[in-house]
Amino acid sequence: MNEAVIYLDHAAATPIDAKVLAAMQPFFCDDFYNPSAPYAPAIKVRREYEAAKQIIARTIGAKSDDLVMTAGATESINLAFSSVSGHVVTSVIEHHAVLAAAKRHDATLVESDERGVVSAQSIKAALRPDTQLVSIALANNELGTIQPLRDIAEVVRVEREARLAKGDHTPLYFHSDASQGVGQLDVNVARLGLDMVTLNAAKVYGPKQVGLLWAAPSVVLSASILGGGQERGLRSGTENVAGVIGFGKAMELAAAHRKFEADRLQKLRDTMQRKLQATFPDAVISGNQRHRLAGHLHISFPNLDAERVLFALESRGVLVATGSACAANKGTRSHVLTAIGLAPEVADGSLRLTFGHLSTEENTAQATDFIIEEVTKEYQRSAK
Amino acid sequence: MNEAVIYLDHAAATPIDAKVLAAMQPFFCDDFYNPSAPYAPAIKVRREYEAAKQIIARTIGAKSDDLVMTAGATESINLAFSSVSGHVVTSVIEHHAVLAAAKRHDATLVESDERGVVSAQSIKAALRPDTQLVSIALANNELGTIQPLRDIAEVVRVEREARLAKGDHTPLYFHSDASQGVGQLDVNVARLGLDMVTLNAAKVYGPKQVGLLWAAPSVVLSASILGGGQERGLRSGTENVAGVIGFGKAMELAAAHRKFEADRLQKLRDTMQRKLQATFPDAVISGNQRHRLAGHLHISFPNLDAERVLFALESRGVLVATGSACAANKGTRSHVLTAIGLAPEVADGSLRLTFGHLSTEENTAQATDFIIEEVTKEYQRSAK
Repeated sequence: MNEAVIYLDHAAATPIDAKVLAAMQPFFCDDFYNPSAPYAPAIKVRREYEAAKQIIARTIGAKSDDLVMTAGATESINLAFSSVSGHVVTSVIEHHAVLAAAKRHDATLVESDERGVVSAQSIKAALRPDTQLVSIALANNELGTIQPLRDIAEVVRVEREARLAKGDHTPLYFHSDASQGVGQLDVNVARLGLDMVTLNAAKVYGPKQVGLLWAAPSVVLSASILGGGQERGLRSGTENVAGVIGFGKAMELAAAHRKFEADRLQKLRDTMQRKLQATFPDAVISGNQRHRLAGHLHISFPNLDAERVLFALESRGVLVATGSACAANKGTRSHVLTAIGLAPEVADGSLRLTFGHLSTEENTAQATDFIIEEVTKEYQRSAK
Repeated sequence: MNEAVIYLDHAAATPIDAKVLAAMQPFFCDDFYNPSAPYAPAIKVRREYEAAKQIIARTIGAKSDDLVMTAGATESINLAFSSVSGHVVTSVIEHHAVLAAAKRHDATLVESDERGVVSAQSIKAALRPDTQLVSIALANNELGTIQPLRDIAEVVRVEREARLAKGDHTPLYFHSDASQGVGQLDVNVARLGLDMVTLNAAKVYGPKQVGLLWAAPSVVLSASILGGGQERGLRSGTENVAGVIGFGKAMELAAAHRKFEADRLQKLRDTMQRKLQATFPDAVISGNQRHRLAGHLHISFPNLDAERVLFALESRGVLVATGSACAANKGTRSHVLTAIGLAPEVADGSLRLTFGHLSTEENTAQATDFIIEEVTKEYQRSAK
């Protein structure tokens, strides 16, 4: 990356960590063997692949036998949803992949509050006797709001037990896309009370199109990609050896540095937030101020054209997002901002600033100055 | 890879070409941006991604708008099959991914002849008024036999026109998995008369888990992985930028060197074949001797335990396969060898030797000597 660039869009994409790439390198040209081949060098590759899965599993308190490696989070989410046929419950502020997968089912989309919190009560109210899946992301990718997964898991557990007490064996699973939070939060599947988890290497300084679905042994998954029977028949195709080994390294590093990094990013984010709020008292900070990803800052400047600010900042080397990366290119207003009740004139002035490995005190201070200058200029221009 | 290793399993996996890896490198840590992001560095990444797709499309005489990038061939095959709901026709000797995808449909599996040839006549005989898909691989991955795709395409075309003449609009598509042949054969979708093609970067010295489905504009695909709407909504998920750029480079190199490389491999293969046949007159060469992939040699030593030979060869640094890599680890007899009518005592003595970039005159001669020695030893041992 260009040294002059200040990258504040870590939620959209992360660079591969140098240590992750170093771990992957041998598997491109040297240990390239098909892990299903019977000779020793291929068996060594198979072992290193399995070892990487074990590392990943350990970081989330799971067993590697319960992981299905996928080509990214989107495939993982689709696989989670295809495991049920009945009614599903999710929220209006979920990622497009969840909303699209839910559309294939009879689905109830619960509302969030104005902070982007999906309450356990709202999930409880949406459960029906035929509900088979509840899917709520660990943290909202636009706002950074962290969801009360443990409370939701408790609602799911109570419903499940009530069914069993009645002799009703309709399954009910709780799935969470934890892609956006796992670098900053401790994701332990048992502590969170989850039945399925989606993770994405590309959000934690690993390679793109590498992800996984963890599913508890009680979950009966339905494979959608059939063939050679890899991943216990749940996802066929010659394994992405280098990618999964990179994912393992990325998760190991994330786990080792999570606490330190979350503290560091929170300081950077809070410093910028304070300065921007001091300069622009009308600015609206969205997301749950008390329980938000450390690296997320969603700020709206009422009556401002955020796209113009985005391009002005870009010309000064500062890369930010106006909404979620998925919606950004479509010229449509973010469904999340609409859902939390942000007025159009506020929503259209929104920037999503996400901090990460490339963020430093220096470049954060620099970016803060640039944002203040460009937002001021834009307000002056539009006042004319 | 260890210098001492003689790799004769190019059909199972190929190392990434150094030039391919060099093309991929910038996109790991530097140009890592999400191609859907709106700022210039991300737009540059988007352009390079699209340019790679154009390179790939050009090598098969297609338009890049008609490519759907997938995580490998297996996903591509599943996507091709999910585009139809009616009856499908394929053959008993197809890859596991095709057979598994076909199982989800009302399917007719035609026989091949003893050379592994699937005739256009047999396809014609299997067509029904409700047939919607014919899927035959360009070349069989175990035998190397090249299929008469143009003849089959003609059968499909005639049937399609007969339907239209009757006012019957039931679609009929012809799909081919060309993964195993595209490095050695000219795959031009128009000349071959195809409606859909599957390709796999991992078979042409590109990265693993990178593939595509090309589909003519007339084909109505049904997406199975939904989300952010990437790949024209047909395959969502943040794009595998580095992987697709590597695939582009790999296809460019394959196209540039195809003729030379096919000639080179054929010479190596034929030399080994002649020596082995001269030494073991009872050895059976399978596959179509007149129309076979240049790098494929499938040879059976009757009454020999091929697995023992495989491990003996491995101890001398020669890596070969006993069957297809997918079946190799399962201890079951290859469905292809059963289908072509190889007697069990012949099939069980089969080696699949596949030549490629790592093959040289020197190491081929060396491997030939080792194979002769180890097969001789094994015959002597079993004669005792």
